[in-house]
Amino acid sequence: MEQQYVPAKEIERRLQKLRSEVAKMDWDAALIVHNVDLLYFSGTMQNALLFVPPDGKEILMVKKYGERAQRESAVEQIIPLSSWNKMPSLLMEHQGRLPKKMGVELDVLPAKEYVRLQRIFAEVEITDSSSMIKAIRKIKSPYEIDLIKQAGRIGKIVYDEVPRVLREGMTEIELAGILVALSMRHGHQNYLRMRAFNSYAYSWHVLSGYTGGMLSYIDAPMGGMGLSPSFPVGASQKRIKAHEPILIDFGICYNGYQVDETRMFCVGALPKRFTDAYGVTRKIEDAMTAGARPGVSCHELYRTGWEVAQRLGYEEYFMGPPGYKTRFIGHGIGLEIDEYPFIAQGHDYPLEEGMTFALEPKMVFLGEGAVGIENTFATGADGVEKLTPAEEALIEV
Amino acid sequence: MEQQYVPAKEIERRLQKLRSEVAKMDWDAALIVHNVDLLYFSGTMQNALLFVPPDGKEILMVKKYGERAQRESAVEQIIPLSSWNKMPSLLMEHQGRLPKKMGVELDVLPAKEYVRLQRIFAEVEITDSSSMIKAIRKIKSPYEIDLIKQAGRIGKIVYDEVPRVLREGMTEIELAGILVALSMRHGHQNYLRMRAFNSYAYSWHVLSGYTGGMLSYIDAPMGGMGLSPSFPVGASQKRIKAHEPILIDFGICYNGYQVDETRMFCVGALPKRFTDAYGVTRKIEDAMTAGARPGVSCHELYRTGWEVAQRLGYEEYFMGPPGYKTRFIGHGIGLEIDEYPFIAQGHDYPLEEGMTFALEPKMVFLGEGAVGIENTFATGADGVEKLTPAEEALIEV
Repeated sequence: MEQQYVPAKEIERRLQKLRSEVAKMDWDAALIVHNVDLLYFSGTMQNALLFVPPDGKEILMVKKYGERAQRESAVEQIIPLSSWNKMPSLLMEHQGRLPKKMGVELDVLPAKEYVRLQRIFAEVEITDSSSMIKAIRKIKSPYEIDLIKQAGRIGKIVYDEVPRVLREGMTEIELAGILVALSMRHGHQNYLRMRAFNSYAYSWHVLSGYTGGMLSYIDAPMGGMGLSPSFPVGASQKRIKAHEPILIDFGICYNGYQVDETRMFCVGALPKRFTDAYGVTRKIEDAMTAGARPGVSCHELYRTGWEVAQRLGYEEYFMGPPGYKTRFIGHGIGLEIDEYPFIAQGHDYPLEEGMTFALEPKMVFLGEGAVGIENTFATGADGVEKLTPAEEALIEV
Repeated sequence: MEQQYVPAKEIERRLQKLRSEVAKMDWDAALIVHNVDLLYFSGTMQNALLFVPPDGKEILMVKKYGERAQRESAVEQIIPLSSWNKMPSLLMEHQGRLPKKMGVELDVLPAKEYVRLQRIFAEVEITDSSSMIKAIRKIKSPYEIDLIKQAGRIGKIVYDEVPRVLREGMTEIELAGILVALSMRHGHQNYLRMRAFNSYAYSWHVLSGYTGGMLSYIDAPMGGMGLSPSFPVGASQKRIKAHEPILIDFGICYNGYQVDETRMFCVGALPKRFTDAYGVTRKIEDAMTAGARPGVSCHELYRTGWEVAQRLGYEEYFMGPPGYKTRFIGHGIGLEIDEYPFIAQGHDYPLEEGMTFALEPKMVFLGEGAVGIENTFATGADGVEKLTPAEEALIEV
């Protein structure tokens, strides 16, 4: 089995950006500790830390498993690390000195590990690198966009299967499981990644009828019922009935890169109230994407979506019930599903070429059901390209 | 759909333990911030924090979603929280004073959130509660053991299905997906939980032939190939061949409670070398469980396993290849898969009644394959009870 490793050129480009940001901040290094950032900057997700000084002499320090890190990573200097305590002596040996100021991803590093790192690097000022790293990662290369496209192709296979397997009386979780199995066979890693504390992402957001009108802890228009208080979101043991909206929001992750996508289904005809509302969400998406291009403010895009919803009389339902509306209509996506940019209130920065994001205009009828569309887009020089090609019409089976 | 909520008696018993530990340490409160600990002490995993003073007047402060937290949690005082910043004023209002010293789970709280909490509670000394909470959680109630048993029953359904679907030429990930779908249908939440930094757990550890002889970042005897460097563990796109060992280590999570379990399969006859080694792992498990009862040191149990492996001439293969052997043969399990006790070198504390743990004696033939058995056990007054009833004989199809 051949696996696809991140090309050396890609790693070099990413590291070059990080080096230059580190230099700009007048830090002596960034120390990458978060596994997803490690994958991004080194190509491997083995148990390791990456030391990045501005001069280009990176060191990948590997706890386990060295041989695999060697094979996967294009970083030149790869050395074994028996324990975090050994880092200062290793850096002295290979760099000749210790950093005075070093950035670390304090948004994910647990407090206890942070205190440990402060003890290990007693003379080093440790500062937060998370904004810097998120800013670098928000612009995707053609290589990354291609992997996101491949995830989108798996998504199409999944949604194409729904009319063949959906039937009245099956549970949401049974349908979800069938789609999970199919997507895994095609390379979906069955594990989405989210950066925020206490968050976890998952593919099987399959909601039918009233479960689409249920809220939960997640910052989303609807949470679903889930299987238990231990997993109070997504597909549940509720049985699917005829004539109720079935919303399938199924993320796919291929080689680490994710798409987020939503399509609508129904057993038999869906009442007009829901088909009308679904039509409005598609109009909202069209209005937003028509104006989306580099330079346009994310806040303005968000406003565009809301203007359509208000003009068409859907203010009550759009993006959640009153009092619980999400403050975003879209979110950046890549190796994690909560990346920049946020198409959200107050996010008054421009779209840039290479940004990838999901737009998800949705309508929630509390206790009754939800409808909506979601696609993942890449920002090109003149507009946005849709990376999720599955059929968008409501499918009645 | 009725869901099963944690009974009020169970929550009261857990909180009583925590209150008494907080009092013993002379703290004024524990503030529960980690979602899994929140589920344990309050019954809900909504976006919330739980304030636990020693006097029994807990406050569950809920950001989202209040109605659901009310329904799921047996905690009496449940109040809305618009932002973490409001906690001190809420506590003043409901408790009449702020704590002087407060425990927080610093092993999981990100450094950035820790700094924020220190700023919000400027006059409060924040200390680490993680050891205290792990020590409370390591002893399971009959209610918890019953949920683990139910997870074990789903595991049996999964393993019973393998001979019906396994065939030469299918990929590991295809087989894994079929088992994931089946387990989800029966209530597996398709999401295992692990507490350690940069760790993630998953069910689909389906390894065949040489992938069973591959190492990765995880602290396990074998890592498997996985789908890509972004998920470098577990099932891969490798096709399953005849006469190679197929190791299926498939964890199940039911209502938050997990079992860990491994069984062996083969298409056609498995070479004697592997069947012999598998027989030895079963002997090791028998020797270890025969002696397991309250009062026995976990380190001694670990030694028992190693003595059998050495006496039978399997030192080279047991628990990983030379230089990469895991330091444990078993691990505690419950809401997370890396709980106390660890059946490991240096863990010289006794087994106690109510502890649940997985034992996983395994043999790794580097680059060739792996065999092994794993079961989850509960410690009773006189010995241990197996909670994972699936057939243990090697199944040849």
